[in-house]
Amino acid sequence: MEQNLQHTIALLSRTPNALNALLRDLPEAWTHNSEGDNTWTVFDVVGHLIHGDRTDWVPRARRILESGEAKAFDPFDRLGQIKESQGKSLVQLLDEFARVRSEALDDLRALNLQPDDFNRRGRHPALGVVMLSELLATWAVHDMTHLHQISRVMAHQYREAVGPWAKYLGVLKCAGHSA
Amino acid sequence: MEQNLQHTIALLSRTPNALNALLRDLPEAWTHNSEGDNTWTVFDVVGHLIHGDRTDWVPRARRILESGEAKAFDPFDRLGQIKESQGKSLVQLLDEFARVRSEALDDLRALNLQPDDFNRRGRHPALGVVMLSELLATWAVHDMTHLHQISRVMAHQYREAVGPWAKYLGVLKCAGHSA
Repeated sequence: MEQNLQHTIALLSRTPNALNALLRDLPEAWTHNSEGDNTWTVFDVVGHLIHGDRTDWVPRARRILESGEAKAFDPFDRLGQIKESQGKSLVQLLDEFARVRSEALDDLRALNLQPDDFNRRGRHPALGVVMLSELLATWAVHDMTHLHQISRVMAHQYREAVGPWAKYLGVLKCAGHSA
Repeated sequence: MEQNLQHTIALLSRTPNALNALLRDLPEAWTHNSEGDNTWTVFDVVGHLIHGDRTDWVPRARRILESGEAKAFDPFDRLGQIKESQGKSLVQLLDEFARVRSEALDDLRALNLQPDDFNRRGRHPALGVVMLSELLATWAVHDMTHLHQISRVMAHQYREAVGPWAKYLGVLKCAGHSA
């Protein structure tokens, strides 16, 4: 289906509560272990989602509206959350994600996008020309990519514990696809 | 890590609220579309989780405690939810999942499992000898397999809409691994 602003916002607005319900006060064995060297914990993923809402999605939408293809987006720092998350608890990050997401969606609504705006074009530093509708769809699918990752990182902690059932559990066969 | 009953219950007890927060009143474009022929919608997945809690996990734990390897588990009907879900709304299924999961965890706690019990063995109709600890770990990872699937099915609905960003979105590269 095509990107639909109401559908996109409906999904984006639910992710913080979903992660809160899944993760708050869960034993750290689930949330502070990764899939191995140079992979992320659930804690890292939540920090990454916060960082994206702060620096990436709405600022890029504004860039498209203000500059079109003339000025490329600022590159997204995929590790930018590491410093910001240091010393915080997962509960703090979950609260912060709820607040930051709510503010980002307020900012998005305040852009008062009209049907013609969705076809407006901007410039991604690596991908080249992109449309505003693609940016908004990507925001939603980016949430799903990281929910997908969170489910996989948590499943990994019981990789050995499931014994012979591993062959039936699709999530244990997932290679990660980079996130 | 090894299966730990408190960790397993902590995760299992959160899944219904997480799905409720993610899915309740979401536009049906997200929840009632699949990944294509012979694949499941989000609605189907929630029905499957209910069916598993009703017929599979705790009944199999009881079978191990009562019969050991002498009597194999009843096979799990992976499509058993289709009939049970017919005519229901997703909101009804989410409420039902919360109730059924809560009852299943009450039943699990009532088994009053002791450390030695986790090594008790049963017989899976296809996998052969399995341990109670493996069954319990599998219950938790089964939740994660289907959360992984739900995130993938939802992302699929915007597969075209994200345009060139698809190459950065891991969830769109996930082959599914059977679930």
